[in-house]
Amino acid sequence: MFRLKMFRLKVIACCIFVNACAAGTAEPSRLLVLMSDFGESERFVASMKGVAVGVDTRIQIHDLTHQIEPFNIWQASYVLAGAIDYWPEGTVFVCVVDPGVGTKRKSVVLRTRSGHYVVTPDNGTLTLIAEKQGIDGLREIDEKVNRRPGSEASHTFHGRDVYAFTGARLAAGVIDFEGVGPPLDSTVLKFQYHRAQAVSDSMVIGNVTHVEKPFGNIVTYIPQSLVDEMGVSPRDQRKLVVEIAHAGLSVFAKNLPYVQSFGFVEMGEPLLYLDSEQILGLAINNGGFAG
Amino acid sequence: MFRLKMFRLKVIACCIFVNACAAGTAEPSRLLVLMSDFGESERFVASMKGVAVGVDTRIQIHDLTHQIEPFNIWQASYVLAGAIDYWPEGTVFVCVVDPGVGTKRKSVVLRTRSGHYVVTPDNGTLTLIAEKQGIDGLREIDEKVNRRPGSEASHTFHGRDVYAFTGARLAAGVIDFEGVGPPLDSTVLKFQYHRAQAVSDSMVIGNVTHVEKPFGNIVTYIPQSLVDEMGVSPRDQRKLVVEIAHAGLSVFAKNLPYVQSFGFVEMGEPLLYLDSEQILGLAINNGGFAG
Amino acid sequence: MFRLKMFRLKVIACCIFVNACAAGTAEPSRLLVLMSDFGESERFVASMKGVAVGVDTRIQIHDLTHQIEPFNIWQASYVLAGAIDYWPEGTVFVCVVDPGVGTKRKSVVLRTRSGHYVVTPDNGTLTLIAEKQGIDGLREIDEKVNRRPGSEASHTFHGRDVYAFTGARLAAGVIDFEGVGPPLDSTVLKFQYHRAQAVSDSMVIGNVTHVEKPFGNIVTYIPQSLVDEMGVSPRDQRKLVVEIAHAGLSVFAKNLPYVQSFGFVEMGEPLLYLDSEQILGLAINNGGFAG
Repeated sequence: MFRLKMFRLKVIACCIFVNACAAGTAEPSRLLVLMSDFGESERFVASMKGVAVGVDTRIQIHDLTHQIEPFNIWQASYVLAGAIDYWPEGTVFVCVVDPGVGTKRKSVVLRTRSGHYVVTPDNGTLTLIAEKQGIDGLREIDEKVNRRPGSEASHTFHGRDVYAFTGARLAAGVIDFEGVGPPLDSTVLKFQYHRAQAVSDSMVIGNVTHVEKPFGNIVTYIPQSLVDEMGVSPRDQRKLVVEIAHAGLSVFAKNLPYVQSFGFVEMGEPLLYLDSEQILGLAINNGGFAG
Repeated sequence: MFRLKMFRLKVIACCIFVNACAAGTAEPSRLLVLMSDFGESERFVASMKGVAVGVDTRIQIHDLTHQIEPFNIWQASYVLAGAIDYWPEGTVFVCVVDPGVGTKRKSVVLRTRSGHYVVTPDNGTLTLIAEKQGIDGLREIDEKVNRRPGSEASHTFHGRDVYAFTGARLAAGVIDFEGVGPPLDSTVLKFQYHRAQAVSDSMVIGNVTHVEKPFGNIVTYIPQSLVDEMGVSPRDQRKLVVEIAHAGLSVFAKNLPYVQSFGFVEMGEPLLYLDSEQILGLAINNGGFAG
Repeated sequence: MFRLKMFRLKVIACCIFVNACAAGTAEPSRLLVLMSDFGESERFVASMKGVAVGVDTRIQIHDLTHQIEPFNIWQASYVLAGAIDYWPEGTVFVCVVDPGVGTKRKSVVLRTRSGHYVVTPDNGTLTLIAEKQGIDGLREIDEKVNRRPGSEASHTFHGRDVYAFTGARLAAGVIDFEGVGPPLDSTVLKFQYHRAQAVSDSMVIGNVTHVEKPFGNIVTYIPQSLVDEMGVSPRDQRKLVVEIAHAGLSVFAKNLPYVQSFGFVEMGEPLLYLDSEQILGLAINNGGFAG
């Protein structure tokens, strides 16, 4: 299905502290943001947008991305959780990475504690949103009301017929959250993953969870808090020991400087940094760590 | 020029029925949808949008796709005909796949029976629209009025100077359909293609007309009606004999289940299904049939 | 960092004249156009748009392109300078190709003579804009006011935290040009490049500066004026001698017809033409000169 790259990653250090952040604004709005693994070369995304515009032409439609690797729910969850907080409260996200289209997975709308909405099949896509933004409410889409009229014969494009349609109705105020359908327990389907953890005062273990295109930066999903607990700060520009293992074998081991930004090392040199979501990353200044 | 993949395809079966659909809404609007083979890495698409915004900033501009294979008019026609119906009546589509730019092909605007407009060179792009949505009217663009002022010295970018400009004027109500230019006979340039046909009560022959990215699903352009006439329904989950031939040689032959959606077969297994345009498709559940 | 392809190019001929053009419209507007080398597969572009929408939901956001080759400032400058003129006066362009993010390069806003704004790191991106559109004013972004609240801990995504935020404020009228920050001398950082030049009455030398995707057309950055001075016109359809050299060695030499558009030569045949920016280009009719 999707490959969660199981490279294990150790970051080792020795001493103190930091401050964190994540923005959130407020105000209702007719904002619809679409995300999928459909690519942009076919009729799919435009059909979804046409349906949304047909609900209310005043809706603003934006793309998060449609280049999620086919069926890669982890990637969808990661990219979504990293973008939500920068959008106004009330923004509706429609996220369709849906290997099980036409089968019995639930179609849901989640309201986050931050006041955003996510319309999606409940297939793991909500894993990181549930952890990061938190669940304020969860409802199952009632397809008797929230399905594009005339679409009953179509079983393979719920992105257009159910999700875009429901998302647009919610964004436009045609329905409110209650109008989505019956409430569910605030439990979403989550995929299991090895959470980053401190193994000692000076060692953290995490995973290589994503490689960002086009730069080839490595995302570890080791949060700043764990790095802080090792007592290191980018301001010190200290070197940390980084080891990457795959299937039990070490494939990379090096001392890398932990710095504020790329330009703090020479061109072509590797570095450790906190990315724009305050997560530990590996990069090469003006180059790519991994293709 | 463009390669219409001439793989022939036979689907064989034995017994009954179904219902069809295609949505259409009404209401005038300032909607402009762009399509081309320009890609998204250059200045081309943004130049078209700038020209359109310059006509009237209240126009909503959307992309259908700009990733049509260069000069592939069949693909343009297919993708366009599959997206139009989901947009409100009055939406203006600007479609520029234009191998003959700067030469004597006609620049036209077609009004479909469904009340949509297509602004395009008349080079085959309108083939499937003429068949599927139908022609309500056809006019030649009068470039003396409908051409970007100051663009006379440019001979290689009618997408910007003629089509986006005219499309924006039409969408904004600066001109109405009559203002496009003189009427033409309702006959558009069509490319020839082998239409799908029933060879017997239990056998249909069609073409592999398109492979959808990124999933690798195969589009046959065999409509549901022909499949229905063989007396088979996805609800029965019966297996049909599928044979794909290229240049007279059989390259694929297998019994495939004809089902409602991907998830009705095991992961990695092939299937036959009606796609979201009610056209027979071949796919692999959570995989790609063809790269 | 970025590779300015140093293929040298000679075009040789013998005799007359032409007219030029570049559009410019007027009128204030809430128009924001984004450009970067971020690609469209990650959370980056959507995070920028969310920040902009959060400043004022009435802003219209468009993409120029996000497919600039990573760190290729020349390409950014070229694509930007080729698109600006087609947008209404007052449009704000946010251009983030920023190899030096987090280091000491200046963050600026340039106002062109044509009344457009460009928000960008001053790292060479403005080279061709300064030459072509001209500098009406230049200001350094005062990050004490023009930085996303709560973003102080982030050092690697100024595109979101500084440039999109400032661009949106300017486009929305929250600040005017003076509100950007203190004025600078009207001098931007420019990269050096070999300008095209007439070597004799009948010979021009330039560079292969860009290969346009997806068609593979070659951009020479030899302006129409230099070609005109050789006394040749596309209307004559004469052949010119074209020689391309790399590292002193000739890699291509051929007589090519200089014509108005692609369709003036047979399919698959090479040609010289003035592109839609009135710059000399090399192409193949319905094919690609260079991949």
